[in-house]
Amino acid sequence: MDPRKLGAEALGTFWLVLGGCGSAVLAAGFMPDTSLGIGLVGVSLAFGLTVLTGAYALGHVSGGHFNPAVTLGLVAGRRFPAADAVGYVLAQVLGAIAAAAVLAVIATGVDGFELSDGFASNGFDDLSPGGYSLLAALVTEVVMTAMFLVVIMGATRRGAPNGTAPVAIGLALTLIHLISIPVTNTSVNPARSTGPALFAGGDHIAQLWLFWLAPIVGAVIGAVLYRSLLGERAEDLDADITGDPEQSIG
Amino acid sequence: MDPRKLGAEALGTFWLVLGGCGSAVLAAGFMPDTSLGIGLVGVSLAFGLTVLTGAYALGHVSGGHFNPAVTLGLVAGRRFPAADAVGYVLAQVLGAIAAAAVLAVIATGVDGFELSDGFASNGFDDLSPGGYSLLAALVTEVVMTAMFLVVIMGATRRGAPNGTAPVAIGLALTLIHLISIPVTNTSVNPARSTGPALFAGGDHIAQLWLFWLAPIVGAVIGAVLYRSLLGERAEDLDADITGDPEQSIG
Amino acid sequence: MDPRKLGAEALGTFWLVLGGCGSAVLAAGFMPDTSLGIGLVGVSLAFGLTVLTGAYALGHVSGGHFNPAVTLGLVAGRRFPAADAVGYVLAQVLGAIAAAAVLAVIATGVDGFELSDGFASNGFDDLSPGGYSLLAALVTEVVMTAMFLVVIMGATRRGAPNGTAPVAIGLALTLIHLISIPVTNTSVNPARSTGPALFAGGDHIAQLWLFWLAPIVGAVIGAVLYRSLLGERAEDLDADITGDPEQSIG
Amino acid sequence: MDPRKLGAEALGTFWLVLGGCGSAVLAAGFMPDTSLGIGLVGVSLAFGLTVLTGAYALGHVSGGHFNPAVTLGLVAGRRFPAADAVGYVLAQVLGAIAAAAVLAVIATGVDGFELSDGFASNGFDDLSPGGYSLLAALVTEVVMTAMFLVVIMGATRRGAPNGTAPVAIGLALTLIHLISIPVTNTSVNPARSTGPALFAGGDHIAQLWLFWLAPIVGAVIGAVLYRSLLGERAEDLDADITGDPEQSIG
Repeated sequence: MDPRKLGAEALGTFWLVLGGCGSAVLAAGFMPDTSLGIGLVGVSLAFGLTVLTGAYALGHVSGGHFNPAVTLGLVAGRRFPAADAVGYVLAQVLGAIAAAAVLAVIATGVDGFELSDGFASNGFDDLSPGGYSLLAALVTEVVMTAMFLVVIMGATRRGAPNGTAPVAIGLALTLIHLISIPVTNTSVNPARSTGPALFAGGDHIAQLWLFWLAPIVGAVIGAVLYRSLLGERAEDLDADITGDPEQSIG
Repeated sequence: MDPRKLGAEALGTFWLVLGGCGSAVLAAGFMPDTSLGIGLVGVSLAFGLTVLTGAYALGHVSGGHFNPAVTLGLVAGRRFPAADAVGYVLAQVLGAIAAAAVLAVIATGVDGFELSDGFASNGFDDLSPGGYSLLAALVTEVVMTAMFLVVIMGATRRGAPNGTAPVAIGLALTLIHLISIPVTNTSVNPARSTGPALFAGGDHIAQLWLFWLAPIVGAVIGAVLYRSLLGERAEDLDADITGDPEQSIG
Repeated sequence: MDPRKLGAEALGTFWLVLGGCGSAVLAAGFMPDTSLGIGLVGVSLAFGLTVLTGAYALGHVSGGHFNPAVTLGLVAGRRFPAADAVGYVLAQVLGAIAAAAVLAVIATGVDGFELSDGFASNGFDDLSPGGYSLLAALVTEVVMTAMFLVVIMGATRRGAPNGTAPVAIGLALTLIHLISIPVTNTSVNPARSTGPALFAGGDHIAQLWLFWLAPIVGAVIGAVLYRSLLGERAEDLDADITGDPEQSIG
Repeated sequence: MDPRKLGAEALGTFWLVLGGCGSAVLAAGFMPDTSLGIGLVGVSLAFGLTVLTGAYALGHVSGGHFNPAVTLGLVAGRRFPAADAVGYVLAQVLGAIAAAAVLAVIATGVDGFELSDGFASNGFDDLSPGGYSLLAALVTEVVMTAMFLVVIMGATRRGAPNGTAPVAIGLALTLIHLISIPVTNTSVNPARSTGPALFAGGDHIAQLWLFWLAPIVGAVIGAVLYRSLLGERAEDLDADITGDPEQSIG
């Protein structure tokens, strides 16, 4: 495999974690007695924009997965060779850990910051931002990642309008965060969960299993659903999305 | 009709209701003594992004209606065959109910949640978020859905720039929510109204008639307006939107 | 002139005023003791999305001005025939008044609403949201409209990437509102100012002159600046925006 | 060098500083006892939209740098001729100072405004919005600007989808602000730092060195990283971003 692909996946996942978790740690609750902080809207936008911008910058090199669940889902969906998956996942996890390290240097540059307060880790029960149960967390992560893969498979199908996939996929990640941050702090990405958890320690690591299991299961479901429900050859139905108004409004 | 079209409509409407109503139920008022919650801006963005992402993912299969009012409006606008409308509407309603069921599983995963508090249903008078009257609700839903159809008809006309319709249509739905959540919690989509209402029960079901009637009336008005005001062959006027600057700025 | 052009301008300006002013009146300060309301971010987004969606829907018919200052600026910039300007401006003002009338029906559907509280009118001094002076208001409206025309002229130049102008122009209007709502409630559009002012009455009408004068002066300055600074034939420099990376990053 | 390039750079940087800093000064904390103000989300959006709109309007003339660090980074990345850099940087700084002057006229149009309160300057330690240290500020500005250049280099590579670079680059700047306003008020652009600091005076000028040094170092690192990690000829790997789903999801 071309080593540039691994570099692109590491760099893109670095950007995803630094930007998404960075916005959460540094800016979400800034000056909490005001409405200046970016809140969950800002964090949702940030996560999505890491993928949108990373995909425009690096997607032509590696495909722009930046997420082990996406890589494995695309294997299940027959869009990515299984032999390359291990390398991709390792590069993604290393990029995520590097991002968490850089973020730790920045975040500890102000008095009173404690990594053990969570550091944008994912969690359920006591570590869920809204106190949601393991079942709610599991359902959320499986369903959200499944729909993420449906969007990815559809937006990158052969014949999709040129240059639109990063917008569709990045904004899908924004949407997923708008829905689910209160439940699990939103993972849908095992690498994104792993980086911060290693620095937060304790129970944040103990819950990490769910954020490997659920996104990967969801991704495989989503990719298989896309292929089976919509057909191996859904592309046969493809009317250019704006080219045949009698058929297509979207 | 190809069954994949029905699958795509069901899945897309599932995503619309899960994402839009999910963001409202789970995240809009998160930690209400802070400014972390996504508020009506976040919910508006979420609804629009369900359509934007769903249309990029599934629009090439079914046209990406995800909304009975859109399907029936496009019949009135001679963009969709009447014979296929019943199947589409059924698929949309089933997708919406499935989404409400999944959302109920997630939302009840935290103590104190009550479906009967509304569950993102639509309403007027006592069930209007801002206490708006039936007349205000009726006018709002008719006018908003009419303009939604104008945008859909125009953005998907023959000759529209390739790949731009999902952005135009998705962000039109965001805009409609930015305006009208306080009035009716914003429907413009009978399927979106039906799913949550079945779980919220009581008066939420009793008011459901308005959110079938008004969006469908509005959609037909909008589609007919587009055809009549702008002409059966508005496409004759079509200068590629950026190709002839003397004619077109937008 | 083709009457469909006038219809499109009236309908588009109707959408601009209904959506932009509607979001301000109905949703900006919704439940003010919470952070649910869309605030100035939501209103800014709404105004921009009216133009983005209206331009995708109707721009191919009329050019998508929806604004007398834009029409007159494009005349000054030699992009629009002077003979058609009066018809366009009349259609725009009629559309704006109709939107204000529909919005008045909706807004008065809740107890305690008073049109005379402002109804999203523009103003300076006592009627400026932040109490800004006439001079600050004048400078703001002139400069903002001038830059709006620079964006419009550049984004619709011959050779611009197909289908991107509505995004550039719509989001330019969002940006302008993000900057200047506190100063004048943001006009840059005499029709948008006129519709609500007629319903708010009193001093809101007395200050209307500024929101005809300043945007039109600014629009002419911007259009002339684009032509003179960048050259009558700036298109000669046109490298497709992404086609020649040695020349162009943006 | 064609003088129109210098005019475009000056005008674009004027728009960046007027829009970005203007939104911060005028609207971020508007009516602070409400949630109406645009907060850091609105300011982040505004900065990004200045670049998005400016690049669509002016990028075809000058390349749309609007930022000395971008110009020098592109020299390091062999995308821009070194001989033209001095002229570009001077034009950018002049545009930024002009914008700060116009903004000062507007901002002082309301009682109680003090330029010396900061005027959207950048800073660390006591002048950091969140009280972050010099080290945190340095790391933040270097890393953010480096990733900005990676996005710019990738989004404008030969073969990138037509018309998408302004979206990728503008929204990258939004993302960078979502992450880092609390740390340094976000520079990544020496011209943007210089304009307001000259009006704020005092320590705001004394700290200006960091916001020349760190963004330029970061930009060079990012450009070199893109070339070395991804290869001089990363374009060889270029599958049209949506054209080959087996290779590319982004």
